Amino acid sequence: MVNAIGVDIGGTKIAAAVVSPEGKILNEVRYPTQAVPPNRLIRTISEAITEVRDGFEVGGACLAVPGFVMAAENKVIFAPNLHEIENIRLDEEMSPLTGMSVTVENDANAAAWGEFRFGAGKDVDHQVFITLGTGVGGGVITHGVLLRGAQGAGGELGHVTLDPTGPRCGCGNHGCLEAFASGTAIQRRAREVANERPVSALGRLATERHVLGEDVTRLAEEGDEAAVAVLEETGKWLGIGLAGFVNVFNPEVVAIGGGASRAGEFVLGPARDEVHLRARSPSRDLVEIKLATLGPESGVLGAAALARGEDGEYILGPSKRVA
Amino acid sequence: MVNAIGVDIGGTKIAAAVVSPEGKILNEVRYPTQAVPPNRLIRTISEAITEVRDGFEVGGACLAVPGFVMAAENKVIFAPNLHEIENIRLDEEMSPLTGMSVTVENDANAAAWGEFRFGAGKDVDHQVFITLGTGVGGGVITHGVLLRGAQGAGGELGHVTLDPTGPRCGCGNHGCLEAFASGTAIQRRAREVANERPVSALGRLATERHVLGEDVTRLAEEGDEAAVAVLEETGKWLGIGLAGFVNVFNPEVVAIGGGASRAGEFVLGPARDEVHLRARSPSRDLVEIKLATLGPESGVLGAAALARGEDGEYILGPSKRVA
Repeated sequence: MVNAIGVDIGGTKIAAAVVSPEGKILNEVRYPTQAVPPNRLIRTISEAITEVRDGFEVGGACLAVPGFVMAAENKVIFAPNLHEIENIRLDEEMSPLTGMSVTVENDANAAAWGEFRFGAGKDVDHQVFITLGTGVGGGVITHGVLLRGAQGAGGELGHVTLDPTGPRCGCGNHGCLEAFASGTAIQRRAREVANERPVSALGRLATERHVLGEDVTRLAEEGDEAAVAVLEETGKWLGIGLAGFVNVFNPEVVAIGGGASRAGEFVLGPARDEVHLRARSPSRDLVEIKLATLGPESGVLGAAALARGEDGEYILGPSKRVA
Repeated sequence: MVNAIGVDIGGTKIAAAVVSPEGKILNEVRYPTQAVPPNRLIRTISEAITEVRDGFEVGGACLAVPGFVMAAENKVIFAPNLHEIENIRLDEEMSPLTGMSVTVENDANAAAWGEFRFGAGKDVDHQVFITLGTGVGGGVITHGVLLRGAQGAGGELGHVTLDPTGPRCGCGNHGCLEAFASGTAIQRRAREVANERPVSALGRLATERHVLGEDVTRLAEEGDEAAVAVLEETGKWLGIGLAGFVNVFNPEVVAIGGGASRAGEFVLGPARDEVHLRARSPSRDLVEIKLATLGPESGVLGAAALARGEDGEYILGPSKRVA
């Protein structure tokens, strides 16, 4: 079997990697996207693919795109950060430029698939993946099938309501999971707790400068109770959301990734407690809630594993699909 | 193609039906279960199967059981109302008694599958089914695959948290969808509103006798604003839950069944408004939220469509499965 290329297209950079059928990254290049004029983005992606493939046998590529993607039609409908690639069929645009089959997937779905094939979910058939970043993204694999939904817009786990009177969410509603458990939510809550507890380490730091999510984790590791409280509360809300997903999907693994997952057990411990309290047997007894294992490489790895050749088959071999 | 038998095992009765490949009920029998000694239940089910099949060519049967079922192993693990059929392999117990292949499925999953094959979802590949009864049950078909999850316990849509400070739920938690939108929840809320509005028709009825869910619907149809308010509130909470399912599953159809769905647009209208407010594009634009169409027959129809022959194939022909 030959290798595939996974391309992760973020707001600030493009990462392209040649991935082996075993999920090893054989070569990787990164291009900044901020320096790229919008009308050159497709050509830049093609250049990244051409550069990274040099010297490797490659069967095709898949792009992980932040936005609304119809994977079945290989179409990017809307990608807020990527003005140029809207309502276009990527295979038609990019195959001539790269000389290979190019498909497309939503970035959170690709990352979920990466963890499923090569990471936290590699030994299971049912996995929920949540990424705690600026927002909360997600991807679900159930019975070995990536849950894209009718239009490819499924797996939006960050926008389930946990409390309709909760904090305002980026989506315009109140009390979504994202409004409680994203990196942004941690920063907001840290400011509030800093005001309530001005003599805590968190409170003192907040008088000096803007508190970042990583500051909260560091202060929690140093034993600051205010910082610990912020992360506990985040974990509790995350757990309320996860309990619902556990009841709905009965997954073997829930994998947590994204920048805010670096808070580790400070968030995962309270989340597990809440799942144990709220989810039902036998689902709650089975599920393992753990950190994703691939870090920022989940995107390129998952995209590569979703790349298809001219014949429509996955290049990195059959999926683990069981259903 | 031959026919299959679907058996719906409820708390008070067994319904067994011979179903044609087109989803027509050719014959049906009903047995009360309350009169059956627990140690005779399996024999009674077998008798129902034997009686209903009389004169029809039948390839096998499937039982829809309220409880925790591992369909892959054809095993009933736990069924609160059916003490006898616990931790048993039904095929081994029942095939000798009936002379045919007998499989098993969770009752809400079977009803969801019935609507998917022959009812509200018969033209789509992604369907969420919710049944509003004493509790709230559910079943999901995504990419044409029945979402059973790792242990067959998936699709528990009634126990997602919509507000952790909400009313107590039968599961022991607070603020589950079931605690807001079941028939039981409607009765509870009707009592509260009757107290708040004693001169309403609802308030007056509550001084005379216990108000049932169907009373609330009837009073709403007669124009009583208090009764309308109860159903609107129910619909709003249902919609908050549905919005999450729409974001997660990106389904073409959400089908609402169960006794409380007879309130119709009094509940579905506010639910749709809430989905439009809370779910994201394009999922919210696609989804059709409508009443289930098979009524109480969804269970026998879905069970029959899930019956498999000795060769493991669905007797009523291939599923609509696309993934």
